[in-house]
Amino acid sequence: MEVKARAPGKIILSGEHAVVHGSTAVAASIDKYTYVSLRFSTPSDNDDTLKLQLKDMSLEFSWSVSRIKEALPESGSLRSSTPASCSMESARSIAALVEEQNIPEGKIGLASGVSAFLWLYSSIQGFKPATVVVTSELPLGSGLGSSAAFCVALVAALLAFTDSAGLDVNQQGWLLFGEKELELVNKWAFEGEKIIHGKPSGIDNTISTYGNMISFKSGNLTRMKSNVPLKMLITNTKVGRNTKALVAGVSERTLRHPDAMAFVFSAVDSISKELSTIIQSPAPDDLSVTEREEKIEELMEMNQGLLQSMGVSHAVIETVLRTTLKYRLSSKLTGAGGGGCVLTLLPTLLSGTVVDKVITELESSGFQCFIAGIGVKGVEICYGVSS
Amino acid sequence: MEVKARAPGKIILSGEHAVVHGSTAVAASIDKYTYVSLRFSTPSDNDDTLKLQLKDMSLEFSWSVSRIKEALPESGSLRSSTPASCSMESARSIAALVEEQNIPEGKIGLASGVSAFLWLYSSIQGFKPATVVVTSELPLGSGLGSSAAFCVALVAALLAFTDSAGLDVNQQGWLLFGEKELELVNKWAFEGEKIIHGKPSGIDNTISTYGNMISFKSGNLTRMKSNVPLKMLITNTKVGRNTKALVAGVSERTLRHPDAMAFVFSAVDSISKELSTIIQSPAPDDLSVTEREEKIEELMEMNQGLLQSMGVSHAVIETVLRTTLKYRLSSKLTGAGGGGCVLTLLPTLLSGTVVDKVITELESSGFQCFIAGIGVKGVEICYGVSS
Repeated sequence: MEVKARAPGKIILSGEHAVVHGSTAVAASIDKYTYVSLRFSTPSDNDDTLKLQLKDMSLEFSWSVSRIKEALPESGSLRSSTPASCSMESARSIAALVEEQNIPEGKIGLASGVSAFLWLYSSIQGFKPATVVVTSELPLGSGLGSSAAFCVALVAALLAFTDSAGLDVNQQGWLLFGEKELELVNKWAFEGEKIIHGKPSGIDNTISTYGNMISFKSGNLTRMKSNVPLKMLITNTKVGRNTKALVAGVSERTLRHPDAMAFVFSAVDSISKELSTIIQSPAPDDLSVTEREEKIEELMEMNQGLLQSMGVSHAVIETVLRTTLKYRLSSKLTGAGGGGCVLTLLPTLLSGTVVDKVITELESSGFQCFIAGIGVKGVEICYGVSS
Repeated sequence: MEVKARAPGKIILSGEHAVVHGSTAVAASIDKYTYVSLRFSTPSDNDDTLKLQLKDMSLEFSWSVSRIKEALPESGSLRSSTPASCSMESARSIAALVEEQNIPEGKIGLASGVSAFLWLYSSIQGFKPATVVVTSELPLGSGLGSSAAFCVALVAALLAFTDSAGLDVNQQGWLLFGEKELELVNKWAFEGEKIIHGKPSGIDNTISTYGNMISFKSGNLTRMKSNVPLKMLITNTKVGRNTKALVAGVSERTLRHPDAMAFVFSAVDSISKELSTIIQSPAPDDLSVTEREEKIEELMEMNQGLLQSMGVSHAVIETVLRTTLKYRLSSKLTGAGGGGCVLTLLPTLLSGTVVDKVITELESSGFQCFIAGIGVKGVEICYGVSS
């Protein structure tokens, strides 16, 4: 009994920060995934432990299932079809289980990720011995939704063998869940995100679950279907940032300059709305693909200027912008800013030589680059693979 | 009979480009001047020519006054107290006078500057032989109002010996004109600016004449008095730009994204208004000088972001921004953008060592830096000096 799930990361196309002040934002999935393989132990394995292997970090944690059962007795009574929040009591028990492991220090989010794993696993699957293997193409803590992708892929794998999956285990290849099942995945993943982030917006897990794009405003999420394939160069500056401090900085600036900032946020709102319209408009013919891309580039450039006027850019982001500008490519920061990742639209007609040059130049500055398709499908599972 | 006049250059503190779309802008004089010395020939000189020496370029042009009289007969009938526009016919005659000189090519604005000189000289002083010597601390064509400063200083020197001056030629040191005389200087200088620029806004000559600061919106200029000395580092990127194309680019972007751009312009309007309030508020005590400077820095940063969202920044401007940001200094482009000059506020408490470091780093990138006091007095004259 083995299953593999993959869930995509996300980018914010427009509206980060301004969304906190009531503007519309647009997020999209990217074709970079976190993979979670789940294999239940068979009696012949003679193994009663739950193992979590984080391949990218070469880390493995394991607990005997009886130890988990003892620590989290109420998990056994939960039903996989009814997503539940981790109680304070369970959180304490989980903290004890995590502490028993040797979690390396300095890996931000690692302990909380392991906690989310224990809660989701025990709540959905109870106390079965198994091995869960995680690999990811998403850099951690860089605003690309790696924690949500982990939660979504994990939940999908865990639900794959329950009645809630609604899928035929004998089907081959990557399979999509139905709408009702996706809703269940999304809700459970949100519970995991709460353990990791405290008060997540729900945007990351929604994008990772459903894929494609969403617009969100004042807590309301609207799913959108992109009619045009977009390719982005994502540059990870590898500069860590303090999201809370950046959000607070924008709020303080808004208190100091309420009139100007209100107009800045309104400008961002217009940009997000225009972007949503462009993305959803009927697929254009070949000629107007370029026009559409130019419009998106211009909106990205405008949004970046507005983010700079909010004070959330960073010297390292400017370095990326300056480099891509040399090649006449448009870029904007994505997410919290102050470091993190930068998006650069790669137009359909752009030659591969130019792309190679830009990447070489950015990587020589110490950045990490990858090319991502935008607005891809959400979480998928695949039965019967070996991890 | 000798007089020297000096007229300051200007910077746009906020609102460039947005002002074309109805926003408020704020401009200020800087303590960098264009100097014009005027010495009438005496009979003993035995010289009946009008000489124009441009010291910085090591250029000299001269015309016999009888040749000028022949070419511009109607100038003799003009009165120095009644500013007059250069007629089409006079413009043609002047063009012929300019063509007779060997004007080096590639010096943008040189021929039109010489034309303005001939018109202003002959209109205000008629056909007296004299030597006019021009030197300037203002880089040409970089948006610092060098042409207006030239016109204002020239007009001031020309008016200094007329009844319109209203000054005592025996007074020592730099003298200021009275209000009525300044108005006359400003109007004549505007006629010169029209010859050089076609359709000038009148901002440059007004700042150069009256000094201090002005706010302007929809063609209305309001003079302001700054209550706090401000020091700016002005970095000349030496990258030439096409102001008309930049202005047109913003208008085209506004047509493509009317909603977002309207909010961007409104944000700039708020910034200019806030800046005007801060500048004119009563002189603060020492402690709050820093607070005031921090507010101005924040407004500059916001304005720069908004200019970027209008698409008028340039890689070379970003280089300056990135360099000054390393030293935690706030900068914005000033004027048309696309090159030109960048302003960096130098806070009162900033150590000279830091200023030296920034300048060294910027100059090593090939830029030209100078420090300017902001909001200084307007045009002044000094009798009896030797040029």
